Amino acid sequence: MKGDNLEVKEAHVALWSKMSTSKKPSPNRLDGHVNWKKRKAELKDALKLKKHAKIIKRLEKQQQKEVQKESPEQNQNNKGREYTVSVALPGSVLDNAQSTELRTYLAGQIARACVVFCVDEIIVFDEQGEDVKSVEGEFNGVGKKGHACIQLARILQYLECPQYLRKWFFPKHQDLQYAGLLNPLDSPHHMRIDEESEYREGIVLDRPTKPGKGSFVNCGMRRDVRIDKPLQSGLRVTVHLKKTQNDDSKVCKGIVVAPHVPRTKGGLYWGYTVRLASCLSAVFTESPYKDGYDCTIGTSEKGCNLDQTSLTPFKHLLVVFGGLQGLEASLDADQNLEVTDPSVLFDLYLNTCPGQGSRTIRTEEAMLISMAGLRPKIIAAFVSNDS
Amino acid sequence: MKGDNLEVKEAHVALWSKMSTSKKPSPNRLDGHVNWKKRKAELKDALKLKKHAKIIKRLEKQQQKEVQKESPEQNQNNKGREYTVSVALPGSVLDNAQSTELRTYLAGQIARACVVFCVDEIIVFDEQGEDVKSVEGEFNGVGKKGHACIQLARILQYLECPQYLRKWFFPKHQDLQYAGLLNPLDSPHHMRIDEESEYREGIVLDRPTKPGKGSFVNCGMRRDVRIDKPLQSGLRVTVHLKKTQNDDSKVCKGIVVAPHVPRTKGGLYWGYTVRLASCLSAVFTESPYKDGYDCTIGTSEKGCNLDQTSLTPFKHLLVVFGGLQGLEASLDADQNLEVTDPSVLFDLYLNTCPGQGSRTIRTEEAMLISMAGLRPKIIAAFVSNDS
Ligand SMILES: C[S@@+](CC[C@H](N)C(=O)[O-])C[C@H]1O[C@@H](n2cnc3c(N)ncnc32)[C@H](O)[C@@H]1O
Ligand SMILES: C[S@@+](CC[C@H](N)C(=O)[O-])C[C@H]1O[C@@H](n2cnc3c(N)ncnc32)[C@H](O)[C@@H]1O
Repeated sequence: MKGDNLEVKEAHVALWSKMSTSKKPSPNRLDGHVNWKKRKAELKDALKLKKHAKIIKRLEKQQQKEVQKESPEQNQNNKGREYTVSVALPGSVLDNAQSTELRTYLAGQIARACVVFCVDEIIVFDEQGEDVKSVEGEFNGVGKKGHACIQLARILQYLECPQYLRKWFFPKHQDLQYAGLLNPLDSPHHMRIDEESEYREGIVLDRPTKPGKGSFVNCGMRRDVRIDKPLQSGLRVTVHLKKTQNDDSKVCKGIVVAPHVPRTKGGLYWGYTVRLASCLSAVFTESPYKDGYDCTIGTSEKGCNLDQTSLTPFKHLLVVFGGLQGLEASLDADQNLEVTDPSVLFDLYLNTCPGQGSRTIRTEEAMLISMAGLRPKIIAAFVSNDS
Repeated sequence: MKGDNLEVKEAHVALWSKMSTSKKPSPNRLDGHVNWKKRKAELKDALKLKKHAKIIKRLEKQQQKEVQKESPEQNQNNKGREYTVSVALPGSVLDNAQSTELRTYLAGQIARACVVFCVDEIIVFDEQGEDVKSVEGEFNGVGKKGHACIQLARILQYLECPQYLRKWFFPKHQDLQYAGLLNPLDSPHHMRIDEESEYREGIVLDRPTKPGKGSFVNCGMRRDVRIDKPLQSGLRVTVHLKKTQNDDSKVCKGIVVAPHVPRTKGGLYWGYTVRLASCLSAVFTESPYKDGYDCTIGTSEKGCNLDQTSLTPFKHLLVVFGGLQGLEASLDADQNLEVTDPSVLFDLYLNTCPGQGSRTIRTEEAMLISMAGLRPKIIAAFVSNDS
């Protein structure tokens, strides 16, 4: 069903998203003031990145064809997961925290909720919906109210990044002042140094190689990895390590793959990408997936009873949460959306906790509760389709 | 099925449990050193309480008979909930918190998880399982490691108590130093001053009445409530308010009922009781319900897949969570339990999050996830029984 084109587009975009953490110093949209000199440099970087993305794209196509040639059945029954799950929430949830430490802790709770349920993309949207300024504005440190979107996005990205890569991608920053309080995600792509794995996240090193010999990548192992293609140093890449390695060699060997490959081929959960959206409607319209999300769920205690709902197979699921005032507030503020009833925006508008014993459920709680309620429905959607 | 006896026994015990918050200063088992003078006074109090419990018991029986006389069908189809849900966890979970504030916050997360899923009883057990000392020992303030059971129990009780009663039942205490950081439970029995309700929690006042005129109770309303029976001042009681009140009168009228009545008759969630257990086995053996728990669930990632499980109707469900090292650790430390495999202790041993994307799920997360997964199973158990 899925054509090469979509596959490649996804690879491309997923790569880009992951790479939004790879600019050093951190990308403009997370950093505050619009600095034009910096922006120009970034545009130049972006062009380079595009070129690299193209390489990856070509690699992808090639790889896919090879796999299909090898054994078409095996490829069909592979252990990979084709679908994706995205979660969106307003950055303003941070403003409900009662101390600067709890603000950070809350961001960590959100990251963990997403990882526990194998969420592939987290979208932080601006509930005020004014315009891009809110996700680009001056930034005043983790303790201050406002600019919660940027803070939340940065902490989410920080936590997603494997520990051994953080020193490169996350220089000291006020937002990360209380990072010591964050509970680790402990996701499968956060490898320990001696752990064996088919895939690893790494950073391309500024270490010279002979022409035609590719580049070196630090994958958090005792030895560096030599990849087949020459890539710009400082890039974050996903590496497929060769099965049989020469133990005596000073380097390992691997090839760079698109970040979705551990999921689509290996069936592994491989962390999430983070996207900022300037308003609720941008959550939908700026989807990194070519055809957008084909199953969208809004959450509210005023929604339909989850227990009476079932899901049909999808490619890209989006689950949207509201802030303190619910999705109605996000809708009200969005000038692109003329409706007032949030339910019309979604394929499903669900109460995921019928009979709740508290008058209100907090967004961070609703995320765990809703994803726990949706988990068996997602599984059932794909099982019933197969049989 | 349920005889008068069981009903009454429950009423009795539930009352007692709620009352463990009503001793002023706070009860010995929460307070630290064994003070014999105090203990004697408490025993005397206890006798008084027993007498009061007897009154309630008589009232209960009377009430029940009256209701049954009025309309037997209506009583059968009443909106009440007969079953109870208990949750047990080790107090040591607090020791995983990384700061004194987060220690308090974590206790609040646990309380909220229980309230969202209408949990009726929370049991805090000592994972070290040494003996009662651990739940009675010297107490050193909220910031210190150790004695986590007592701290957790106290914060849970504090949060459960309606705000307007806290000044009486919770004098300043080190454990509650960071109570300002706690998110409110917002449960139905936490009434606002002008909220109308059939039931209310209150404290018996030290306000003289004429003989035969009962007592006065502060139920957090603008007017005090006169109840039918004379009760000892300082008691926490559940009051059923008369439907039609004389608006001009300076007092309202109500009758004291057992704390389970809002649930069993009104179908309302009415908060939880807190029980301390000196080891894992005491969670089972010291049940406040006459015949103990008739459905017990242990939780672990090594358990059976929740999705392939269904529940049968029960009277008293118990769901048990482990700490940092899982239930295996609690079992190892318990000298009363000779087994090493936790699964044999429970009717069901369940993995409530199959396919988890993080290597470990924290206890406070597992509580929300597990209860969200069990919620539809609990509902289904009672629906399928009726049809
Ligand atoms: C504090 S609640 C918002 C409450 C708001 N007054 C409302 O009525 O929606 C924050 C978010 O948690 C989620 N949420 C809360 N309760 C929920 C429920 N029972 N079912 C699904 N989502 C819920 C929704 O995404 C909601 O926007
Ligand atoms: C940090 S975990 C304990 C991990 C421990 N290594 C183990 O294997 O059980 C703390 C508690 O969360 C609950 N828990 C964690 N993951 C779970 C899962 N997938 N299903 C059910 N309960 C889980 C269990 O009660 C567990 O004792």
